[in-house]
Amino acid sequence: MPSHVNQVPPIDKAAGAITRAYIDTLTKPPGSLGQLEALAIQLSEISGEHKPAITPPAVVVFAADHGVAAEGVSAFPQEVTAQMVANFVQGGAAINVFARQIGAQVEIVDVGVASSLTQQGVTQAKVREGTANMLLDDAMTQAQANAALQVGSEAVERAVQGGAKCIIVGEMGIANTTASSAMLAVLTEKPVSQLVGAGTGISSDQQAHKVAVIERALKARQANPQDPMDILSKLGGLEIAAMTGAYLAAAANRLPAIVDGFIATVAALTACRLCPAVRGYLIFGHRSVEPGHATALEALDAEPLLSLEMRLGEGSGAALAFPLLQSAAAMLSEMATFADAGVNDNAAP
Amino acid sequence: MPSHVNQVPPIDKAAGAITRAYIDTLTKPPGSLGQLEALAIQLSEISGEHKPAITPPAVVVFAADHGVAAEGVSAFPQEVTAQMVANFVQGGAAINVFARQIGAQVEIVDVGVASSLTQQGVTQAKVREGTANMLLDDAMTQAQANAALQVGSEAVERAVQGGAKCIIVGEMGIANTTASSAMLAVLTEKPVSQLVGAGTGISSDQQAHKVAVIERALKARQANPQDPMDILSKLGGLEIAAMTGAYLAAAANRLPAIVDGFIATVAALTACRLCPAVRGYLIFGHRSVEPGHATALEALDAEPLLSLEMRLGEGSGAALAFPLLQSAAAMLSEMATFADAGVNDNAAP
Repeated sequence: MPSHVNQVPPIDKAAGAITRAYIDTLTKPPGSLGQLEALAIQLSEISGEHKPAITPPAVVVFAADHGVAAEGVSAFPQEVTAQMVANFVQGGAAINVFARQIGAQVEIVDVGVASSLTQQGVTQAKVREGTANMLLDDAMTQAQANAALQVGSEAVERAVQGGAKCIIVGEMGIANTTASSAMLAVLTEKPVSQLVGAGTGISSDQQAHKVAVIERALKARQANPQDPMDILSKLGGLEIAAMTGAYLAAAANRLPAIVDGFIATVAALTACRLCPAVRGYLIFGHRSVEPGHATALEALDAEPLLSLEMRLGEGSGAALAFPLLQSAAAMLSEMATFADAGVNDNAAP
Repeated sequence: MPSHVNQVPPIDKAAGAITRAYIDTLTKPPGSLGQLEALAIQLSEISGEHKPAITPPAVVVFAADHGVAAEGVSAFPQEVTAQMVANFVQGGAAINVFARQIGAQVEIVDVGVASSLTQQGVTQAKVREGTANMLLDDAMTQAQANAALQVGSEAVERAVQGGAKCIIVGEMGIANTTASSAMLAVLTEKPVSQLVGAGTGISSDQQAHKVAVIERALKARQANPQDPMDILSKLGGLEIAAMTGAYLAAAANRLPAIVDGFIATVAALTACRLCPAVRGYLIFGHRSVEPGHATALEALDAEPLLSLEMRLGEGSGAALAFPLLQSAAAMLSEMATFADAGVNDNAAP
């Protein structure tokens, strides 16, 4: 069991209540900043501060491969995982661009790419060279899943040491929507056909094949719906496990974590099943078009800030949402109150 | 007729097509950045550039009063317009906070506040001290509506001279949802009851009163649905006219304008009725909870970038959306192509 599970404090509801009351003294009609107000309250609950600080953010991207890619479930060949890691290191991927925009450092962690990566700039933390093909064997052992969780939590600890005040977690792993869909089917006991979509761009025939592969894997693996570590090790991915560990560590450090799209939300759901107190630290960045995402969000009672019909991953949707956290924090620290500004806050007769 | 109506060039569809093709060479699955890709294409169409520049943005807030406030249609008394102008000048309002976040200069323009404003920092461009009560008389003359349009376009011209590459227009005016709803009912020939909401926070009894006031005004004024200037002068507001002029001027200067919520969208619709070519220059920032906003957006076939349950105005929802324009522009200027990065872009067999 990962070490952070017992180290997540409850969020500070009292600080949130004070912030809620303070927001109603600011020069705007009550409630008129909508979700931004709810976000500001949550940031206070997370940090315990009335004027929470959320900069700088840090982005951590975990990369790993999936044995199930051999079944032809993805639009891209497995080599693309390693090629995209090289692109991350060179700063040319979408997540690099969006991370620069928000002033976030980016750490790229190899937790299980199937080939040897020797580039400077990649954190070497490979637990194994990709998972096993879940049709044939458990994706990984429980010990390996625990090791990958630990890789994720250590990456967040490094970010915290580096001064990060907000954690954005991303992933890269060809076929990881297949692993995530399999996990989600067990976690929520929903039919696979309801969860599977185009991923990075497969046809409807390929989608039917992907559903059949997952259904066969579920039958073969028999993961226990009540045991998140059993689900993670039998059907998951090394990067999904690392992301789960990262959310646990962010919460243990009382930092907000912005959850990206489908794969990230399945990891977040896994973290919350391991430790329900994590939920209060999670902010959801973007609603993906991947159909399973709606199910995963519903299981977490979560409403993302953005809905831009994206389906990229890498942490991109979470990074795009970060400026809204800045706006919420700036509302608390910079807006005038009715009393400060001499504005009449009485309702008209 | 405002001078910019005949000066809006068509958007550059050819530049947009080149950008569309270029986006598919970037290191991401085709289409996976969703609305951000559409936004990047639109920014190219607007500027004619393949790597459009959108910084710095400029915010212009137009303030004016409404005679119909005397009918008790707002949650706040009329004095709040002038008090909020003072707050804008001191930098304490939500729009100031969000403008600072995006590096935008803010200009506050008094185009028709009902009291004398002498603060430093307010552009004096009062056309008249508030509109007439539209139950009793036309809100303003056509000459005054034209003068207010001109105030709006001149403010944008100043912003362009100052180097602005993107225009955000906001408003302040107690009772201006009443004026906007009246205009929209005529512009779209929809029933008033379908358009009217809580504004800045009135009860459902007060809403019924607001609907009745607007219905009586429509009957009394008999504005011509085919004549936008007739609608604007009989039922509109001085700040709504100025915003209309501002959108015309942004388009004439080939700059993107981010449209805020309900009132801004009614002004944008008016600008598009005067000059349909304006539509291509408009980007919609935020979907307001004000019910009329959906109708106004539909009339423009527009889908806002954000939907955060806000209903503040001031340009706040437009300013919050600006970082997404930055992301779209940065995607074009900073992401690697598949060829640059040596990433395999073949679909798997």
